[in-house]
Amino acid sequence: MKLKARSYDVDLSEPSVILHDADCVQIGVRENDRVRIEGKDSWIALVDKSDSILKKGEVLIAEIQMEKYGIKDGEVLEVVYSPKPDSVNYIRRKMDGEKLSKDEIRAVVDDILESRLSKIEVSAWLTSLYINGMDLEEIAHFTNAMVDTGDRIQFQRQPVFDFHSVGGVPGNKITPIVVSIVAAAGLMLPKTSSRAISSACGTSDFVETFCNVELSAQQVRDISEEVGGVFAWGGSMNLAPVDDIVIKIEHPLGINPRAQMLASIMSKKLAIGATHLVVDIPTGRGTKVPTLEKAREYVSDFTTLGRMLGMRVECAVTYGDQPVGQAVGPNLEARECIRILEGEKHPSSVIEKACECAGMILEMGGIPNGVDRAREILESGAAHEKFMEIVVAQGGRPDLKSSDLKPGEFSYDIVSTKSGYVHGIDNKAIVSIAKACGAPTDKGAGLLIMKKRGQRVEKGDVLLTVHADTEAKAQRAKETALRLGPVHIEGMLIEKGV
Amino acid sequence: MKLKARSYDVDLSEPSVILHDADCVQIGVRENDRVRIEGKDSWIALVDKSDSILKKGEVLIAEIQMEKYGIKDGEVLEVVYSPKPDSVNYIRRKMDGEKLSKDEIRAVVDDILESRLSKIEVSAWLTSLYINGMDLEEIAHFTNAMVDTGDRIQFQRQPVFDFHSVGGVPGNKITPIVVSIVAAAGLMLPKTSSRAISSACGTSDFVETFCNVELSAQQVRDISEEVGGVFAWGGSMNLAPVDDIVIKIEHPLGINPRAQMLASIMSKKLAIGATHLVVDIPTGRGTKVPTLEKAREYVSDFTTLGRMLGMRVECAVTYGDQPVGQAVGPNLEARECIRILEGEKHPSSVIEKACECAGMILEMGGIPNGVDRAREILESGAAHEKFMEIVVAQGGRPDLKSSDLKPGEFSYDIVSTKSGYVHGIDNKAIVSIAKACGAPTDKGAGLLIMKKRGQRVEKGDVLLTVHADTEAKAQRAKETALRLGPVHIEGMLIEKGV
Repeated sequence: MKLKARSYDVDLSEPSVILHDADCVQIGVRENDRVRIEGKDSWIALVDKSDSILKKGEVLIAEIQMEKYGIKDGEVLEVVYSPKPDSVNYIRRKMDGEKLSKDEIRAVVDDILESRLSKIEVSAWLTSLYINGMDLEEIAHFTNAMVDTGDRIQFQRQPVFDFHSVGGVPGNKITPIVVSIVAAAGLMLPKTSSRAISSACGTSDFVETFCNVELSAQQVRDISEEVGGVFAWGGSMNLAPVDDIVIKIEHPLGINPRAQMLASIMSKKLAIGATHLVVDIPTGRGTKVPTLEKAREYVSDFTTLGRMLGMRVECAVTYGDQPVGQAVGPNLEARECIRILEGEKHPSSVIEKACECAGMILEMGGIPNGVDRAREILESGAAHEKFMEIVVAQGGRPDLKSSDLKPGEFSYDIVSTKSGYVHGIDNKAIVSIAKACGAPTDKGAGLLIMKKRGQRVEKGDVLLTVHADTEAKAQRAKETALRLGPVHIEGMLIEKGV
Repeated sequence: MKLKARSYDVDLSEPSVILHDADCVQIGVRENDRVRIEGKDSWIALVDKSDSILKKGEVLIAEIQMEKYGIKDGEVLEVVYSPKPDSVNYIRRKMDGEKLSKDEIRAVVDDILESRLSKIEVSAWLTSLYINGMDLEEIAHFTNAMVDTGDRIQFQRQPVFDFHSVGGVPGNKITPIVVSIVAAAGLMLPKTSSRAISSACGTSDFVETFCNVELSAQQVRDISEEVGGVFAWGGSMNLAPVDDIVIKIEHPLGINPRAQMLASIMSKKLAIGATHLVVDIPTGRGTKVPTLEKAREYVSDFTTLGRMLGMRVECAVTYGDQPVGQAVGPNLEARECIRILEGEKHPSSVIEKACECAGMILEMGGIPNGVDRAREILESGAAHEKFMEIVVAQGGRPDLKSSDLKPGEFSYDIVSTKSGYVHGIDNKAIVSIAKACGAPTDKGAGLLIMKKRGQRVEKGDVLLTVHADTEAKAQRAKETALRLGPVHIEGMLIEKGV
């Protein structure tokens, strides 16, 4: 039917228009159905209904769409029913537990990218993936479809090594150390990282405290080929961009379906042209991978998927049931990371993990005794030298020192109320406290964990120190810490047998 | 943080506010998270983000919310992070295939009703219900929770009989006949019906062609107790209203999860105080219940659930693989229905079905040989007399005749291109054609099916006649009919054995 366009000032997360209730009946559409709008251009929008903010005969179109399609206020447009895209049927098929074909998966991915699916439909897709899953053949198609939604980086220099942690453990600041060791050994590792999604501090959140992480694809290529590595933020390139839309729906549901997680990791690696990949799988209570059994499933998933996609993949199943090292939060993690590159021997958990992972990559690159070699490169200062080359190439200061990175000036110590042994540290509580400090936005915000699992604690000992950029946030973090009690202390006795 | 309110002119399907990207980072919220807004009142809204249509320091609030919470343009409000409601965790548990408790189910239902859950979350809930289901104990809790979201009607007169068809078959105009027979037999049946959701014509869509269906709870009570029955539209009362919200999310996904369907039917019956219920389950190709096996599962579900909820339930599994009777569409169905009450013997499928269902209700009410008795009441004219009493009580004309109901004046005949037997009639195609005619909005729109399954057809015979209120719609319907070929004609030979 013919309707008169009226613009309204709203930024939409979905491309929808508002129609009058009575016109909806005439057109034969209901809320969340679709209409095709025909003016100079023809385009599809979701239907919202109202009988109060517009008159019969009008269609409300967001300003941004008016501009995009060259529609003038008051212009008369043909508005007709438009069927659902086919991808809605494929989502239904996944709900019914069926296996999808390559083309069906591609249709869903393309329609998500082009905003042709509503939030309701994408939510149903992710929920179905979470419950019914995909087999590896489907996930391989899914990965390729996601790669094709964005750009690919082509390197002259081959092979291309890569490293990824599936995350879920706080304080995991090993990436710049791994990249520096690998690059110092003469291999190329163009590493892209993310910012925090649900964590307190992603790799890019702490790396940007000492150099620029927003590199173009060209810069990533140039620096990697010349220096051997980068620590770039993946978000500034257009790699498998459909992921960014999906995350917005996953986040409120608190899910990350296995198929989506695997496809999203592997697609970014394919897009950057990786030929060899090591995946770190932190495992244990409070991580994304609670048991060794589950970890082994992921190992099998990643390596098989790698074969299907033409990439050599090895996995490192690592302890993740307590934070890695002492520091959580941007400046604090950067400081701990750089200190180790400068020669500091503590915390050993960070050094061990970085050298184990780097060692696996070296061996994939044909360098024998990888872990020993990684440790030599770190201890000799060669890794630090390479690190500084990368930092400078990414616009960091050539005289960067770990001591440049300052914790927030407002701090509180959390002390133990009893004596005993540290029985466990609750990852999720640590993340909540660091966020209460202001991480990852406030660069000084975060915390230092003074006692790790297995250590003896006396009543009154400092368990952790919170740092914040404002007094109010330090106070809030202290309260969060006292409420959550992230460090669990017990006697040695587990149970009394009588 | 403190933000300045600015109103915008939009009607929202979810209670959301728009914040500036930079303020979101400060508050620590992401899109689809929630904030609490504290002014004179304190309320929760979902977060939309923008960096173009508002300035840092502003919060855009829909006019309707500004009014509701007494907020003035330019007023400074405190906007802080608000955690997800607990019901999101229960949705997660259902995703994980767990059984939910009474209180958990109630929390989800209440939060849907109060718009505390987003479309994304409700979609995940329905998808989880569709895939993982609920057991009958959960469904009983679900039903009670839905009843408690709305009003209940209390009748002085007891028992209260009720009748429901799960739908899925076009042309099913038996309800007014069933109600009239049952009421004429001295039992009370206060029937509420729906309008078309995905069908071409709901019971209320055709009943409103000859009397008012928008009755208050008081009118439903008064008329039922005095006359013995009503044909009311359920939507004008506040019975289990959460259903209306759920349907908006089910519709675009094209799903109606078993748990949701059972709870939604049973909650409306409990809300109206039904003590005895007959459920019609149309079964066969092209219905909601394709196989007899599936139908028997529904029988078991309904009767067991009835016992758990203190209601006596019996089910009629009926043939539904072709439309009931000849007519589909408001006036056409009303005419066919009233003709039968007036004494017409055709189409017999409508008469059979109405008498079988009414008979079951009579027997539940202690009247022996129910079907024979129902047929006597219909043939004697007592049902017609009762029907007219109800029509008049609902504001219809006392001299109502079936001939008052006119088909749309523009019509086309669809003729057979070959000779043979009618092998099947495609329900979904029939619905599409009737909708193309303009049903259920245009009252004259619809179609008459001239040949039913098993009948002999000669080339050139009229298979169906479409009726519409405008030439354009009649033309569109004709094209739809020619494209979909809803009447399948074959020779008697199924297969040749050699």
